[in-house]
Amino acid sequence: MDEPAARQRFAAARVARLATVTPAGGPHLVPITFALVGDDRIATAIDDKPKSTRDLRRLRNVQADPHVCVLADHYDDDWARLWWVRADGEAEIATSRPMVTAATAALQAKYAQYREWLPDGPVIAIRVTGWAWWQAAPT
Amino acid sequence: MDEPAARQRFAAARVARLATVTPAGGPHLVPITFALVGDDRIATAIDDKPKSTRDLRRLRNVQADPHVCVLADHYDDDWARLWWVRADGEAEIATSRPMVTAATAALQAKYAQYREWLPDGPVIAIRVTGWAWWQAAPT
Repeated sequence: MDEPAARQRFAAARVARLATVTPAGGPHLVPITFALVGDDRIATAIDDKPKSTRDLRRLRNVQADPHVCVLADHYDDDWARLWWVRADGEAEIATSRPMVTAATAALQAKYAQYREWLPDGPVIAIRVTGWAWWQAAPT
Repeated sequence: MDEPAARQRFAAARVARLATVTPAGGPHLVPITFALVGDDRIATAIDDKPKSTRDLRRLRNVQADPHVCVLADHYDDDWARLWWVRADGEAEIATSRPMVTAATAALQAKYAQYREWLPDGPVIAIRVTGWAWWQAAPT
């Protein structure tokens, strides 16, 4: 797997996990739906539906410390098929109209749900500063 | 879902993601195989095979800062079926023989691979200090 292949696998994953650091310095994790925008930007939306603390926490963490880590992985009971791709990056709440538009389009292209119903919460845009990957056996 | 149900779903998941904080303060993520030992202890082994930097990094992070977050989640394109369970906890490299023995037994009970081949790397034992969970729709 080279970087373009890793990026492609990452982009195709239906779910990833977003790790942020809380203001107290501890790790925090949530699963996210996401889309890759261009080569090195990850977009994830905050659902407007239940304004739960989990959504707010994610935003609060990112505003206090933009460093995030996003992981997509594949599990199989046949461990020769395991792989993961990790993106380290810096997150911001997207405010520029071009970024919000591009993020929305990418999310709608990937998930049917976002074509029927558009989250009106903020979009988190992550600028990827490094890709890492691993797989159990060469394909 | 109540706490026993959340713990049970977590325990049954084949893979989880472990978030640690690096000495520089950034988040770090790896997928892990794991087993629940008793109600509030998560055991995960470091494979002895390829002594790669990812294993060392996980250990280094935990030794510098024991706060970890472990997430098990279920993704389905039908978003009414989504759920996740998160454990916040404190990790240590297990050194006591009873803990190592219990962790090994739990991992072997869960994964056939560990019955055939026992990782001789260290075991990380996480004492769970809080469970959190969410599901899209009540079952």
